[in-house]
Amino acid sequence: MAKLLLHNAVVLTMDKQNTVYDKGYVRVNGNTIEDLGSEEGLSGVDLHDYERHDCKGGILIPGMVNTHTHNSMMVFRSLGDDVQDRLNRYIFPLEKEVMTRETAAAGANYAYAELLLGGVTCVFDAYYYEHDIALAAERAGIRGLFSETIVNFPAPGSPEPYGGIAVMEEFIQHWKGHERIVPAVFSHAMYTNDSEHLKLSHRLARENGVKMGMHVAEMDHEQEACLKEYGKTPVEYLDSLGVLDDNFIAVHCVNLSEGDMDIFASRGVSVSHNPGSNAKAGRKICPVTQLQKRGVTVGLATDGPMSNNTIDIVTQLPLAAKLQKIANHDRCAISAVEALRMATIEGAKVLGLDSVIGSLEKGKRADMAVFETESVNMSPMYDPYYVLVYSANPSNVSLTMVDGEILVKDKALTKTSLSEVRAELLAQQAHISGVAAKL
Amino acid sequence: MAKLLLHNAVVLTMDKQNTVYDKGYVRVNGNTIEDLGSEEGLSGVDLHDYERHDCKGGILIPGMVNTHTHNSMMVFRSLGDDVQDRLNRYIFPLEKEVMTRETAAAGANYAYAELLLGGVTCVFDAYYYEHDIALAAERAGIRGLFSETIVNFPAPGSPEPYGGIAVMEEFIQHWKGHERIVPAVFSHAMYTNDSEHLKLSHRLARENGVKMGMHVAEMDHEQEACLKEYGKTPVEYLDSLGVLDDNFIAVHCVNLSEGDMDIFASRGVSVSHNPGSNAKAGRKICPVTQLQKRGVTVGLATDGPMSNNTIDIVTQLPLAAKLQKIANHDRCAISAVEALRMATIEGAKVLGLDSVIGSLEKGKRADMAVFETESVNMSPMYDPYYVLVYSANPSNVSLTMVDGEILVKDKALTKTSLSEVRAELLAQQAHISGVAAKL
Repeated sequence: MAKLLLHNAVVLTMDKQNTVYDKGYVRVNGNTIEDLGSEEGLSGVDLHDYERHDCKGGILIPGMVNTHTHNSMMVFRSLGDDVQDRLNRYIFPLEKEVMTRETAAAGANYAYAELLLGGVTCVFDAYYYEHDIALAAERAGIRGLFSETIVNFPAPGSPEPYGGIAVMEEFIQHWKGHERIVPAVFSHAMYTNDSEHLKLSHRLARENGVKMGMHVAEMDHEQEACLKEYGKTPVEYLDSLGVLDDNFIAVHCVNLSEGDMDIFASRGVSVSHNPGSNAKAGRKICPVTQLQKRGVTVGLATDGPMSNNTIDIVTQLPLAAKLQKIANHDRCAISAVEALRMATIEGAKVLGLDSVIGSLEKGKRADMAVFETESVNMSPMYDPYYVLVYSANPSNVSLTMVDGEILVKDKALTKTSLSEVRAELLAQQAHISGVAAKL
Repeated sequence: MAKLLLHNAVVLTMDKQNTVYDKGYVRVNGNTIEDLGSEEGLSGVDLHDYERHDCKGGILIPGMVNTHTHNSMMVFRSLGDDVQDRLNRYIFPLEKEVMTRETAAAGANYAYAELLLGGVTCVFDAYYYEHDIALAAERAGIRGLFSETIVNFPAPGSPEPYGGIAVMEEFIQHWKGHERIVPAVFSHAMYTNDSEHLKLSHRLARENGVKMGMHVAEMDHEQEACLKEYGKTPVEYLDSLGVLDDNFIAVHCVNLSEGDMDIFASRGVSVSHNPGSNAKAGRKICPVTQLQKRGVTVGLATDGPMSNNTIDIVTQLPLAAKLQKIANHDRCAISAVEALRMATIEGAKVLGLDSVIGSLEKGKRADMAVFETESVNMSPMYDPYYVLVYSANPSNVSLTMVDGEILVKDKALTKTSLSEVRAELLAQQAHISGVAAKL
């Protein structure tokens, strides 16, 4: 059991009181936070068997949580942006033509590198070949929820419509009880899943005590078709099926009525907010402050690498704050502290992991990230929250730890090599370019 | 006269045709671009007296242009964010109490480091003690427009109301004809300048052939007071004074009517768009696409370091694109190419320098920036514009050149030391904290 001491850090615990230790430390024993506090609390403590890490005045926060992505789509990043109807024009055809087990793994491996280098320690991934993707995550050392996406058409890895349900039944049994790989169910959307299969998926999640995620109230056509067919908003429709509960993670949620938000609040639904992806697609702004006022938990996410396009959470911090300030015409809407809570403890709540991660507290798992403050954008520091949210970028992350294991040190990966995962990623590029050129 | 060859780069020229050289080079002779093109064009060319810089497949673009900032406010960055009415509560009192010639220079020196490290080669700065700030810019090697801010109250450096006008008269005479330090007039706003002095300032600018900048249609109280007092929008009011012309740079412009935009178009006014600052303040979104449709030139800016808070332009690229996509409910509004044009050639047009900088063309000044593509966020690269606008961050800038001089190499400053300018900046922090604590 390795013992580690991280010291000389501005520690933002993100606990209930947002406790800050200006010159603080965190002690790690095995995969657990042993204790933390101000450095003077260490006087007289026997530290001879601790490996020491001097954070050099950097900012130490809980590892960030990305509540929604499709990591393997990394292989498509920067392809066909700024194009109308790209889901049908590019994404679905590309996936059909290109996405093999190997391609999915190559994208995921590279994504894990980017997530860890950006201080993300936990991610909710929904894609295809998810068993391989989870194996890759296990090797990379990252924590997360993993779901085979359920759709009503033949998909990569499952030739039958709704094949994702059978994949997930097996997946859940295989991974149940794993320390870092947590199964979840992900039904793509109401326009790619019928009511019968949404109920089936919901039962699968409920019976196994795992989360159910879904793209909800994201698309204008989704809204229009649902109102036309059922006379209901998508949220009202899902509620009528009985699938909305405190296990349900609604992703995107840009088209919400007041009534929809009330339903979320009464059912205990959580929301995964994807500000960069929604903005890049020209969608409405998710009504985060109104959801929060109702007590709905909202965590941050990036969506897949074709959508945002980066998958770190640091770049989402200023955007999440600023979009709510615009939407509310109020410079105080979503303060820096609130944005960072959405990126950490609120994200952990969305994923049902807040008893384990999301804040730096004694007894929780040792998932954390350190931002160096030596780069030009990080000075002066009158307030560490403002520096993190309005100035930092993912390249400022110097150390990332998951489950007590240091996976990024001095801005470099410790277990994998960036050049290796890049070579694996770029090996796909010529073939993908050729396919895309014909779309 | 130094001769330089930058090669093995994806060259985005930002010329009229947006010419791209996938494996390109730029040759520099003294302060001028000698020629550029695809690498095969170099075969047979005698290059023995050229210093070679291998860009290693990086993206080479024209130096970015920041059309509005108050650099010296760097000393206040991360102080009092997310606070209502911070202009009156923090900014004006802090400036009154704290801002000396030395403090202004310390802030500017640090700002030049951040600008250059982020690939900004030209900046429009408006502040106080501007002569010292211009001297510091001359030493740093950056290019820009520099203005003493004109306000109706005693300001740092000029104890008389409107003292900035006299300062600028002298400043213009002193710096006229300088290669990189370009004088300009900056009247703070219509709520801090009366009509008589706005006309005086306009005459000063016109007679000396320099630009006139001003915060316009930024504040709700500005809009309300102007309508109440004059029965006119701020733009209509300024037009009635005769100060709007093709020399005028209107900064912010978040509260614009259709009529205001028509006035800008007919008078040839240019707009400095500050997406990050406006968003952080919870203001409306500047109607960029509607201005552009009328032929109004729009460049990018950050505003001062208390407002955005970083002053690089890279972080404004995705924000500029995404806010227009949201405002227009259209994922194709402001494409990546258009965002990069606003950051380069359109910004140069705003500042009246597009015959000299803003694009990579034979005979223009050698102002440019190189982004390395080895960091995790920069792969894969199906399209360099999408990579730059949706994935890059300022830490990816590896080389910055102004006027043929390499000022950043391998991500480090060549003429100044970051640790020195940081020490100078942080020396102010204790005093400023003390003053701010009483506000």
